[in-house]
Amino acid sequence: MKIALDAMGGDFGPPSLVAGAVLALREYRHVQKLFLVGDTAQIENELRKHDCNDSRIEIVHSTQVVDMSDRAWSAVRRKKDSSVSRAVDLVKYGRADAIVSAGHTGAAVAASMIKLRTLPGIDRPGIAAVLPTETNVFALVDAGANIDARPEHLLQYAYMGSVYSRHVLGYKNPTVGLVSLGEEDVKGTEKTKEVFQMLKRSSLNFVGNIEGRHLFEDPVEVVVCDGFVGNVILKTCESIAVAIFQWLKHELSRTPVRKLGALLAKDAFDTIKDKTNYEEYGGSPLLGVNGICIIAHGASTPLAVKNALRVAAESIEQQVNPHIVEEIRRYHETTAPLEPALS
Amino acid sequence: MKIALDAMGGDFGPPSLVAGAVLALREYRHVQKLFLVGDTAQIENELRKHDCNDSRIEIVHSTQVVDMSDRAWSAVRRKKDSSVSRAVDLVKYGRADAIVSAGHTGAAVAASMIKLRTLPGIDRPGIAAVLPTETNVFALVDAGANIDARPEHLLQYAYMGSVYSRHVLGYKNPTVGLVSLGEEDVKGTEKTKEVFQMLKRSSLNFVGNIEGRHLFEDPVEVVVCDGFVGNVILKTCESIAVAIFQWLKHELSRTPVRKLGALLAKDAFDTIKDKTNYEEYGGSPLLGVNGICIIAHGASTPLAVKNALRVAAESIEQQVNPHIVEEIRRYHETTAPLEPALS
Repeated sequence: MKIALDAMGGDFGPPSLVAGAVLALREYRHVQKLFLVGDTAQIENELRKHDCNDSRIEIVHSTQVVDMSDRAWSAVRRKKDSSVSRAVDLVKYGRADAIVSAGHTGAAVAASMIKLRTLPGIDRPGIAAVLPTETNVFALVDAGANIDARPEHLLQYAYMGSVYSRHVLGYKNPTVGLVSLGEEDVKGTEKTKEVFQMLKRSSLNFVGNIEGRHLFEDPVEVVVCDGFVGNVILKTCESIAVAIFQWLKHELSRTPVRKLGALLAKDAFDTIKDKTNYEEYGGSPLLGVNGICIIAHGASTPLAVKNALRVAAESIEQQVNPHIVEEIRRYHETTAPLEPALS
Repeated sequence: MKIALDAMGGDFGPPSLVAGAVLALREYRHVQKLFLVGDTAQIENELRKHDCNDSRIEIVHSTQVVDMSDRAWSAVRRKKDSSVSRAVDLVKYGRADAIVSAGHTGAAVAASMIKLRTLPGIDRPGIAAVLPTETNVFALVDAGANIDARPEHLLQYAYMGSVYSRHVLGYKNPTVGLVSLGEEDVKGTEKTKEVFQMLKRSSLNFVGNIEGRHLFEDPVEVVVCDGFVGNVILKTCESIAVAIFQWLKHELSRTPVRKLGALLAKDAFDTIKDKTNYEEYGGSPLLGVNGICIIAHGASTPLAVKNALRVAAESIEQQVNPHIVEEIRRYHETTAPLEPALS
């Protein structure tokens, strides 16, 4: 398998990205080719630091970078030679099987939509973030690809999330919940109420509106929401987990007795800390584009980059796209249009 | 001071609400009168269980309850004799200084808007939820009063949140952040971009767009968002905090060594657990209505109800409403209309 890494994006730039690539190549022998896309001089410089001359690396030079302050769509159109665009091109022209980017999320989404197009039956792609619960994980779609989602987009997220959940996370008949304000049918915005009716009529295992407690305490397996809300959930979860552990660390170091206690219980903390650490998840697939695109965390450390490349490799193996196309086709064949039912 | 408690709402109904009222009366001697509004027989029955015949209690009978499946506005219009409506009436007619409800949030908001009206210059009220960080707290406005907020509503939340933060939380010049998708000016929905421009031109200490990490890791003091997003943030935080402690508890009980460690470090856990426990906060003020209305948590335990009554008592003492009116008046006097600046 062949993966293209946008080697310029992310908060920590080429040093972190190239370090992650080196880690991944050492660990994942089944990666046959890793394209590092970006400024050749910078990438070579980083590779030298790691004494890395792995023959599976191919540097693809690009002269531009999409900045975090750029507008996504215009950046992709204007900066033709940006690292993210060039990386997506490698997938478009069949040289790579997947792209990984830790840069401007909107630009990666726009470049994928423009160059790879969406799958038949899908209007907008959605990011599927995988979040941990105590006993398992759930998929949150959309975690930030599309902030102006229409009801039919949310229905498509539900289908894509279910396919992903079945084929990658291993759930047989994943439960699907719609993020809303209150669990009752009548709660929510006009948009969520319309999506609620669509999901009720679908073949999905829809359990209704969900609130916070269905995320972690009594979790559903696929959480559906628009990209704005999904991104807020994702970032809030990351922030609060980091904050609680930081806080705990300070409290535990206040007295010698507490310090001893913390030492004895260290394994327990480490288990949870590892499981809630986004670096372990690495990257989230952008579902719905005709190709494989993995969105890595903006603040990607080398460990996170390595794991994003692992997610890319897994996605190449699992090939969920044909299943998404099939499920959506079946939905349209078996479900009458919604309008008459709603009026 | 006189407080009206909707004694029928909430997930646990009169048993929990009356138990909380009894706790509050024992502790807060400065509460001169507590109206318990709802079904007299049920309330008397609960009071008997606690052997409570405090002369400060006055039961106000009402025959109806707004159910969680009711639509907020129609419920207030249709169920004229609901406990929440009757409780708001007590404030409207000057018999009580504040109302506390753990029932249907939308109904409490609607009843307050219909009967008390909004303050001059305020179009829509917003719930100010106070959330803990390691070293302090911040105010999140709106935590769920208004799910279809327009840009000017969010500006008003920012002003109300700042006034609350200054006069109640004690921040001198509170920093204000707007929840968005990315920190850069260009990120967000059309709505958040418009609010961004409004806030930039205001006299508030606006620090820009914020994401998750500005909630807990590097917090701002007033977090502004619409009611849908605010409610999602609030519920996600509650859920994840509960889940992490649950998870930690299980991990800590796996081996005798970990158990001993947990015992030695117990104080540290308790400190954080108490601080992240919503029951300690009890209730959130509905800012922007011409009166004092405290929204208690739906799943209010007696401890949470007691603390919601404490928040009501504090709000009566602090009287933030005149300050809100003054700030908004000054904003309109000193700030030219936005339209020309945007075009």
